[in-house]
This record gives sequence, C-alpha cells and structure tokens, in this order.
Amino acid sequence: MAGATPIPADADWLAAAARLATRARPLSRPNPGVGALVIKDDIVVGRGWTMPGGRPHAEAIALAQAGEAARGADIFVTLEPCAHRSTRGPACADLLVEAGPARVIAGCEDPDPRTAGQGIARLRAAGIDARIADHPPSWASLAGYLTRARDGRPHVTLKLAMSLDGRIALPDGQSRWITGEIARAHVHSRRALSDAILVGGKTWRADAPALDVRLPGIEDRSPQRIVLTRGPAPQGTLAIASPDRIGTLADVLYLYVEGGAGAAASFLAVDLVDRLEIYRAPILIGDGLPAIGDIGLGNLSAAHERWGLAERRQLGSDTFEAYERQREE
Amino acid sequence: MAGATPIPADADWLAAAARLATRARPLSRPNPGVGALVIKDDIVVGRGWTMPGGRPHAEAIALAQAGEAARGADIFVTLEPCAHRSTRGPACADLLVEAGPARVIAGCEDPDPRTAGQGIARLRAAGIDARIADHPPSWASLAGYLTRARDGRPHVTLKLAMSLDGRIALPDGQSRWITGEIARAHVHSRRALSDAILVGGKTWRADAPALDVRLPGIEDRSPQRIVLTRGPAPQGTLAIASPDRIGTLADVLYLYVEGGAGAAASFLAVDLVDRLEIYRAPILIGDGLPAIGDIGLGNLSAAHERWGLAERRQLGSDTFEAYERQREE
Ligand SMILES: NC(=O)c1ccc[n+]([C@@H]2O[C@H](COP(=O)([O-])OP(=O)(O)OC[C@H]3O[C@@H](n4cnc5c(N)ncnc54)[C@H](OP(=O)(O)O)[C@@H]3O)[C@@H](O)[C@H]2O)c1
Ligand SMILES: NC(=O)c1ccc[n+]([C@@H]2O[C@H](COP(=O)([O-])OP(=O)(O)OC[C@H]3O[C@@H](n4cnc5c(N)ncnc54)[C@H](OP(=O)(O)O)[C@@H]3O)[C@@H](O)[C@H]2O)c1
Repeated sequence: MAGATPIPADADWLAAAARLATRARPLSRPNPGVGALVIKDDIVVGRGWTMPGGRPHAEAIALAQAGEAARGADIFVTLEPCAHRSTRGPACADLLVEAGPARVIAGCEDPDPRTAGQGIARLRAAGIDARIADHPPSWASLAGYLTRARDGRPHVTLKLAMSLDGRIALPDGQSRWITGEIARAHVHSRRALSDAILVGGKTWRADAPALDVRLPGIEDRSPQRIVLTRGPAPQGTLAIASPDRIGTLADVLYLYVEGGAGAAASFLAVDLVDRLEIYRAPILIGDGLPAIGDIGLGNLSAAHERWGLAERRQLGSDTFEAYERQREE
Repeated sequence: MAGATPIPADADWLAAAARLATRARPLSRPNPGVGALVIKDDIVVGRGWTMPGGRPHAEAIALAQAGEAARGADIFVTLEPCAHRSTRGPACADLLVEAGPARVIAGCEDPDPRTAGQGIARLRAAGIDARIADHPPSWASLAGYLTRARDGRPHVTLKLAMSLDGRIALPDGQSRWITGEIARAHVHSRRALSDAILVGGKTWRADAPALDVRLPGIEDRSPQRIVLTRGPAPQGTLAIASPDRIGTLADVLYLYVEGGAGAAASFLAVDLVDRLEIYRAPILIGDGLPAIGDIGLGNLSAAHERWGLAERRQLGSDTFEAYERQREE
C-alpha cells in the first residue's frame, strides 16, 4: 500500500476546507468563518479563509491565489458562496462565474436570506456544475453562524474542569490546581477561539478571574468578558441578567461558559449548552464543590440521549472530552 | 511486513501466560491463579492454569500436556515454581527437574517463604537455565495473592457507576439506570472475577441488592456477599465492622466494593483501594448523590499522583476506565 497516494474524494477536500475555516475563528465575526480550496488536477492551487472583520471572503482569497488556474478547476467551500453585493466587495458567486471553474461544491447552504440557494443558482445559470453537499464537518465549522441564524443566539460551549468524581473544588473552595499545565494551556487556546467568555457572579466575586488568553503570541486574542449576574456589570465586563439574554450579545458567535456550578446549571436547565468540554484529572476529591448545580432533572430517562462523544484526547495525565448536544434537526 | 510472523520475545510468552492465568481467577483461591506455557521451537506444546481449589498447579498441567516435548523446551510461568511438597501433589520444581526443560522463565518471585527463591535455586542446581524476569503483567495477574502476602489483606477494587458530573443517583435516590446494558453486564463479569463483593449497610438496607452474577452459564460464580456495617450481619451475608478488618476475610484474594458513597469513602480514606473501575454514562444529573463521601482530603496536592490510567474502553455509549493506585514499591 505504501507509495500509492489515494485520490481525495470530494468529502476529503471539503473536510480540508473545514479545517482551514478554523483559522478564521473567531476574528471573522460577525461573519461566518469560511474555508475555500481551489483544486486543479488533484493539486491545491488556491486556498483562503475569511479575514478578520469578515472581508475579504475565503473564495475571493483562494481565487486570487489560483489566478488563471481556477478556470476549469474544482472549488470546495464550506458555505454556499454569497449572492449579495456589498459596499465591502463583490458577491462571491459573481467572482466565481468570472473565474470559470468546472465545479463548485459547498458544504452547507447559506441561511442568510440574501443568499439561501441563490449563490448556487447563479453558478448553475452560468453553466457551472454547482451543488450543496451534506457535509457535517462543514456544519460543525460553522456552528456559531448556524446557531445564530437558526436560534438567534451564539453557540454555547460549557467548560468543566473536574476530578474523577465530578468535583471542581474542595469544600473550602480550593481549586488550584485540579488539572495540569497542558490542560490549562488548552483552555486558553479554547478561549482564543471564542468571541466571549462568561462566568457567574459568584465566581467573578470570589476569584476575580483574568479570563484572558495567556499563550505566547496570541495574548491579544482575549475575548470579551461577560458576567451572569442580577446585579450591575463589574468593571471591564458586560453583564447579562439571565442565560436567555445571550441572543442580545452583539457580534458573539461563540460563547464559552467557564462556570461556576450555578452559572453552568442555569444554562443547562434551559437547554442552552451546545457543547460540553470536560477536563478530567486522575484524582479523587470526595466531599467538595460539585461541577454543576440543580438542572431540574426529574427522572433519569430524561437525561439520556442528549450528549454524544465528539472528541477525546489525553492532555498530560488529564483527559479532555467534548460532547455535543444531539438535537433534532 | 505482512507474511512475516515476528518471533515472540520472552516477555510476549510471559504476557500470554499472564492472560491464561486470568482463567484461574478467582476459583484457584486461596492459591494464586498462575499461568504456564511450554514452548518448543516457537510452538506451544503445553499450557495450564491453576485449577479450582488451587491444585493441580499450572505447571503440572502444562507439563502433562507437553509430555516428552517438554525436554529441552522453554517454560514460561507467571509465578516462581513452588519448592514445597504437599499432600496434594509434588513440588513443581521437582516436576520440572524431571521434565528437563532447557529454560524456565518466571514472571515473579514467590513471596511464600516455603518457596521464595528456592524454586529457581532447585532448577539451577539441576542445570536448568532458570530465572525470575521483572514482568509487570505477571505481577498484575497475581495482584490478589501479592497483596495478601505483602499487606495481609485482599486486593480491593472500587467500582463506581456515575454520570459525567460524578453523580450516582438523583436526589431522591433514583439510580436505575445511569449506565446501559453492556456496562451492567460488564459489572457482572467483574463480579465473577472476585471472591467477595462488599456494599455499605445503607445500600444493603435501601436496595436489598442481589449482588449475584446474572450472566448465562456462570450464574454459579456469584461471590460471597459482605456488608460493611457496625450492626449485625444481614442474613446471607458476612459483616465487617470497618474497612481495616478485610484482612480477616478468609480465602478472599479479590474484594469488589460496589458502594455506596459512604462505604467507598471509608475505604479510600484509609487508602485501602488498589484499583478504581469507573463506568461513566454520557449524561448530566446536576443535583444528586455524589459518588463518594468525605475522604478527608485536606489539600489538592495530596490528591495528585495517586491514580494511573490502566485501561479505557467504550461499553456502548458508556466509558469504562480503570485506574491503579500507584504505590511506592
Ligand atoms: N474548577 C473550576 O473549573 C471552576 C470554574 C469556575 C468556578 N469555580 C468555583 O465555583 C465557585 C462559584 O460557583 P457558584 O456555583 O457558587 O457560583 P457561579 O455559578 O459562579 O455564580 C452564581 C451566580 O451567577 C448568577 N446567576 C446564576 N444563575 C443565574 C440566572 N439564571 N440568572 C441570573 N443570574 C444567575 C448569580 O449572580 P449574582 O449573585 O451576581 O446575581 C449567581 O449568584 C467559586 O468557588 C469558583 O472558584 C471553579
Ligand atoms: N449508582 C451506583 O452505582 C450505586 C451503588 C451503590 C449504592 N448506591 C446508592 O447509594 C446510596 C447509599 O449510599 P450511602 O453512602 O448512603 O451508604 P453506604 O455507603 O451504602 O452505607 C453506609 C454505611 O456503611 C457502613 N459504614 C460506612 N463506613 C463505615 C466504617 N468506616 N466502618 C463501619 N461501617 C461503615 C455504615 O453502615 P451501618 O449504618 O449499617 O453501620 C454506614 O451507615 C443508596 O441510595 C444506593 O442506592 C448507588
């Protein structure tokens, strides 16, 4: 088998575009972070992702890179090319028609009513073989944008750092450290992928957490700080008075909730958590503070089939696990 | 590489013997469950494991199977061959001298003072190339026996079945079911490998648990039931009045502790748990009963570096994890 390089299928190229899209997160806000690849004779001749502030779009960058090679090429893009002209640039559908690729495969239809199928239609009208592929990795890479479009709110990740027995602190509040250095650095990298971080009022008052990104080179990626509180906003933060107010947070596609137990429970109780990210240290605490408070669960059967394991990896001696909320489509 | 079968190294054969030894567990009690292989020209010509009640020994069975082929062969055995004659059979060292193998490799020296190096010595005196290999998988397969010899008590496994957030029941005690069918069947297979199962007095009174092995074909492998209680022994059980009394349990090499939180904590508090087996369901419970009660932890640093991940696997949508207590040798 060694030596023979398999020819990537369309889904593989789309998956590569979805990985590229991650580079746009979160700075493309409020625009979706999109990834695009121009492929000619199984070779990448152009690639792009959405630039900070949302422009230029991924397709514009990838096409500029490909130049004349785009003619007759295959184009893979995680989101349907936009059909609307803007003062900030031409519609990607028009750019593509001009470039003249043979095929355009998009991972997801754009829910924006100004595009919503019209991007693909315009390409087809120009004789390009264009279609929407059903491509879950593309959807996942667009989670913030799609959640905003569908539910009018950001995508919410709840982070929990706990012991094997589900404790986040000793009874006296001592919680430094449960997880190790690698896990803590990983948390900072997750912060850097978020538009905003939220903690509960008690955590704010007890720990005065910095909630910043302390990773060399990307310290400037520290997100907006949000406090869940019925009181006034502490200095340097925005306040929201209840979880169902998160839709009002302007320009936030990805919200990262860091606890404590009360804030976590209040999001879970109203089913506003899309993803759990759990850091689990190989220690037992016994008596201590629980990871989450009352979520109003009346019977065990209601707890099942809500969470699906999406990722697991070791971070030193700690285990990282991500679970996705499995919702009816 | 396909086609070429690598020649197993000594450690591979010993590992195979250690897997074979598992078949002896727990019915060999009070004798150790040992595994033995006779290898001639890289082929298995004899194999054996300790029979119920402890006799015949693994070597005796493997040698009988090999017959004349044992002469000049290599013999791999998880525990040093015994040097003491018994009314129930000859010493394995004598049987081996008679069989005339070229080499005998044992995974562990026998702590029994009647053997303790004398088995190997007798083989060497007869001109056989005999030695003790440092072989952790052999030690692991002898955990019950070695713990008895070193600490005068059984090897203790604590089982915990919990939610992602470390809960074992709703606040009202509802705990059927947290884990799924496959995980529950796995628990029964673990019971079948134990000499005794222990629960706390409150769990006994609240749930009247059957604590039996409900797996087709091995229903008769249900272990002795033990209740941790300051009161009298409930009918059909043995009682012990505190965890540090487990040394008095006759013929118990492997003790399986199934909870509840109070019993689990009382074993952990006195450092009498050797292995944690955790079944974790992908659900959140929030408020509810914690997996373990107060273990007297004063500061977080004392909780670290005690538990090492030994095994992880999926059982349906649940995750099984085993952690071993890392003790100084
Ligand atoms: N190990 C870790 O990973 C970790 C992470 C975070 C926190 N912690 C620890 O957790 C402890 C704090 O946790 P906690 O559970 O006591 O408090 P918390 O979740 O940080 O904050 C609770 C507060 O959040 C606000 N809140 C909660 N639900 C609300 C709702 N539905 N609407 C409006 N406001 C709401 C209220 O704030 P107001 O009172 O301001 O109105 C409430 O008092 C601290 O000791 C902290 O160190 C540990
Ligand atoms: N989901 C699961 O996997 C699971 C498993 C097991 C249990 N449970 C649940 O857990 C609950 C019971 O747990 P629990 O924590 O309340 O009680 P428990 O651990 O079952 O029993 C506590 C009792 O154990 C005895 N005990 C504890 N420490 C002792 C010590 N150091 N010396 C002597 N005796 C000691 C005492 O018995 P006496 O009072 O008799 O003296 C004590 O009252 C039940 O609701 C049960 O359903 C769930």
